[in-house]
Amino acid sequence: MRVLGIDPGTYKMGVGIVSSDGSSMWMDYLEVVSPKRRDPLHARLGFLFDELSRVVMEWAPSQVAIEQPFASRNVKSAMAIGQAQAVAMIVAARRGLPVSAYAPRAVKQAVTDYGGSSKEQVQEMVRALLGLPEIPSTDAADALAIAICHINASESGNLDIRE
Amino acid sequence: MRVLGIDPGTYKMGVGIVSSDGSSMWMDYLEVVSPKRRDPLHARLGFLFDELSRVVMEWAPSQVAIEQPFASRNVKSAMAIGQAQAVAMIVAARRGLPVSAYAPRAVKQAVTDYGGSSKEQVQEMVRALLGLPEIPSTDAADALAIAICHINASESGNLDIRE
Repeated sequence: MRVLGIDPGTYKMGVGIVSSDGSSMWMDYLEVVSPKRRDPLHARLGFLFDELSRVVMEWAPSQVAIEQPFASRNVKSAMAIGQAQAVAMIVAARRGLPVSAYAPRAVKQAVTDYGGSSKEQVQEMVRALLGLPEIPSTDAADALAIAICHINASESGNLDIRE
Repeated sequence: MRVLGIDPGTYKMGVGIVSSDGSSMWMDYLEVVSPKRRDPLHARLGFLFDELSRVVMEWAPSQVAIEQPFASRNVKSAMAIGQAQAVAMIVAARRGLPVSAYAPRAVKQAVTDYGGSSKEQVQEMVRALLGLPEIPSTDAADALAIAICHINASESGNLDIRE
């Protein structure tokens, strides 16, 4: 299976593609998409949409996994997460791809075996699990971690944490 | 000017097109887009995206106006509003259309001259302002009210409430 993992943000969106053949996992693609900070919100979302559409077209993932926080600092940041998630979900829907959503704790649990792990621990474990030459940035590591979480959940048949 | 007004929701999205020649306003189009309730979120967003893209293609509005609440019942509903807003913003961005966002109070103020007016008052004033034969449903009236609010703000040069 080939999974597109998305760490949703309207300024920085982590986009990673991880494949698994059932016995090993590897990274196919990694990007942190960053629209121009001064562009209005709709232009940033349009940019993210075009970029994500390109990645999906080029890499043809079979599934999409996104992060789904259940808490947020405030209404504004919750709306921003929703907006960024929608970009990924619309791109997936237009290609007929299934979308799964995972809470941050589930993602941390999947890669570090501990739901309360630090960003640094997630980065280091993602590097180790995928055999990367160096530690990815936090947004990049989160995108890969979400894809890894979905692969683990799918292969263990534990797909109860869905959108 | 021809304005596409959007009342964002992931189950029901009010979509209205209102035109103005500077002295009078009229309604060109009105729809409440309702994806299948049982479809997963990404499928509903994809459906809203396709439907809104069709309306924009067919009616060629020059501007888009959406509602931007600054408070919300909870994180989940704030994310849902963000997701629905993103549909409208991505459609607008892909057509190069400017997007303006208005708080619910500003919309109510624009159509009823009172920011705390009831849904019924908004529905009745929208009917009167656009000379509609009957009172539109609340989602439909909200979409038209947002378009009217943007036309008023544009024509009075009062465009400070932007996204």
